[in-house]
Amino acid sequence: MARDIRIVAEAELRRVVKLDLGTIDVIEQAFAALSSGKVVMPPILSMEFVEANGEVDVKTAYIPGLDGFAIKVSPGFFDNPKIGLPSLNGLMILFSAKTGLVEAVFLDNGYLTDIRTAAAGAVAARHLAPETVTVAGVIGTGVQARLQMQAAHLVRPFSRLLVHGRNPDKAADCAADLGRALGIEVEVVADPADLVAQSQLVVTTTPSRLPILSAQWLHPGLHITAMGSDQAGKVEIDPAALVAADLYVCDRVSQCAVSGELEAALAAGLMTDLQPSELGDIITGQALGRRSAADVTICDLTGTGAQDTAIANHVNGLLEGTGTLVSA
Amino acid sequence: MARDIRIVAEAELRRVVKLDLGTIDVIEQAFAALSSGKVVMPPILSMEFVEANGEVDVKTAYIPGLDGFAIKVSPGFFDNPKIGLPSLNGLMILFSAKTGLVEAVFLDNGYLTDIRTAAAGAVAARHLAPETVTVAGVIGTGVQARLQMQAAHLVRPFSRLLVHGRNPDKAADCAADLGRALGIEVEVVADPADLVAQSQLVVTTTPSRLPILSAQWLHPGLHITAMGSDQAGKVEIDPAALVAADLYVCDRVSQCAVSGELEAALAAGLMTDLQPSELGDIITGQALGRRSAADVTICDLTGTGAQDTAIANHVNGLLEGTGTLVSA
Repeated sequence: MARDIRIVAEAELRRVVKLDLGTIDVIEQAFAALSSGKVVMPPILSMEFVEANGEVDVKTAYIPGLDGFAIKVSPGFFDNPKIGLPSLNGLMILFSAKTGLVEAVFLDNGYLTDIRTAAAGAVAARHLAPETVTVAGVIGTGVQARLQMQAAHLVRPFSRLLVHGRNPDKAADCAADLGRALGIEVEVVADPADLVAQSQLVVTTTPSRLPILSAQWLHPGLHITAMGSDQAGKVEIDPAALVAADLYVCDRVSQCAVSGELEAALAAGLMTDLQPSELGDIITGQALGRRSAADVTICDLTGTGAQDTAIANHVNGLLEGTGTLVSA
Repeated sequence: MARDIRIVAEAELRRVVKLDLGTIDVIEQAFAALSSGKVVMPPILSMEFVEANGEVDVKTAYIPGLDGFAIKVSPGFFDNPKIGLPSLNGLMILFSAKTGLVEAVFLDNGYLTDIRTAAAGAVAARHLAPETVTVAGVIGTGVQARLQMQAAHLVRPFSRLLVHGRNPDKAADCAADLGRALGIEVEVVADPADLVAQSQLVVTTTPSRLPILSAQWLHPGLHITAMGSDQAGKVEIDPAALVAADLYVCDRVSQCAVSGELEAALAAGLMTDLQPSELGDIITGQALGRRSAADVTICDLTGTGAQDTAIANHVNGLLEGTGTLVSA
């Protein structure tokens, strides 16, 4: 009994799926569903390739009410740039949540992950940043630095943007790209303390293994989203900042405790007596978010299978009639 | 930078990949590699769909020396037959172990899993069954009952085969199919005790949640392979039989302890002071296998990601020039 399975390549996905408010709403709904307690989301499957300096993660989740569930495979092979290949790759597979049959294979090379990750940053900004953000700052100069700022600008239309990176050339490139994309003033800032001091919204997007944002830099009316840490040992935010903030929020406590900013804080003996709220709890009103314009808030994003299942369903709806059909 | 990814449908895979001695050797090498200690094989990712009576498992492994690694997704949705669909489905994806790039997608609907599972049964028979098997028996009447006996016959060419199943019609169908496939005498046996008594090699292939093979039925010169249990709560062999046998062997101790026959034995307080050998240890000579024709041996198979990676690499080698190429 042959069925047609839709195979969609990256170029087609880039043409059809955009980082827009529609995508941000889809990811927001995924976080709200997560906080309902009805989503099934197993721990991430992770495998290391020591010799090849690589790793692969598999994420998934079942969200009741959505027709399909995604299995998302994200390889990261960090020596690839030496041979002219990107470090991050992968694909998503969409299965029927009623029959388990394969519906579609999205050969996205990580594009959908990039989009759903940036959308999560926008959801965090929408629910936690001060109502008015005039200056935003980004630390890091890669793909996510660009996408996070584009996404954040959709929900907090700041008029000035600051970029900091260890490599001044990359920072200049990133700033130029963002200036073109957003049509606003974008400036490279050499000192990250200066960047934080001037910003109401800061996003950290690095693979750092040492804190790059000091607790001493916190100031009233600041929101920070840390989205770089997604593996044990990575950390961007000084653990003392998590305690000093008025509010610390996780995408998923169980993940952040082993691979997010929370991991380093727990290792330092901090935050141990706290059960942090999750982003979905803020969205649904089950937990209190920012209480005043002066609050300091921090959101710790590690990336969830719920986001993958949500964007895969969304994409499948947008793709009707496209892609290569393979009879299987 | 577009690359071609090979998409191969089930019909093509069935045409190219057979359950033969070549496949059995490939799976044997995977078990040998597992016992080297150099294979990386994370725990199985599992997710349940309570309302849909479904589950999905994701398995993977990295075997040094092989060019690729597989991610295998196996959904099982057990109400599917009510709407005319098979319960088991899924696909395998082959990635480069050097760059993490997707090489091929095998839309096999579980065919490759069927083959590598039956091949593991043959590996167990080759290394643990008595040298001479004249009568073999199979308990269960599904796809694996057929494939396990075809695989076992390649390594132990028995002349008589006994089939037992709860449903006499299905048992008769299975016996007829196997008679045609093997060209030997195949008989349905109503009493499983009788089947075991007459056989030197028995394979259990059921999804049972209560033991179906009693310890009292063990007799000198018997080998049993139990391949039905692959989830917590499933059990085919009376836990007392594991203790009574001269040798109990796992495919992977860490998996069998939570989802194989070993799980039920441990729950009964048995086998707790034992570190069982793995099938790979017997193959490589790191552990002792059958010591005499009179030994009673049991092999507990839950299915490993190493088998998936091994067969996916093997298949990719056989498929040169076939399938649909999608530029991604």
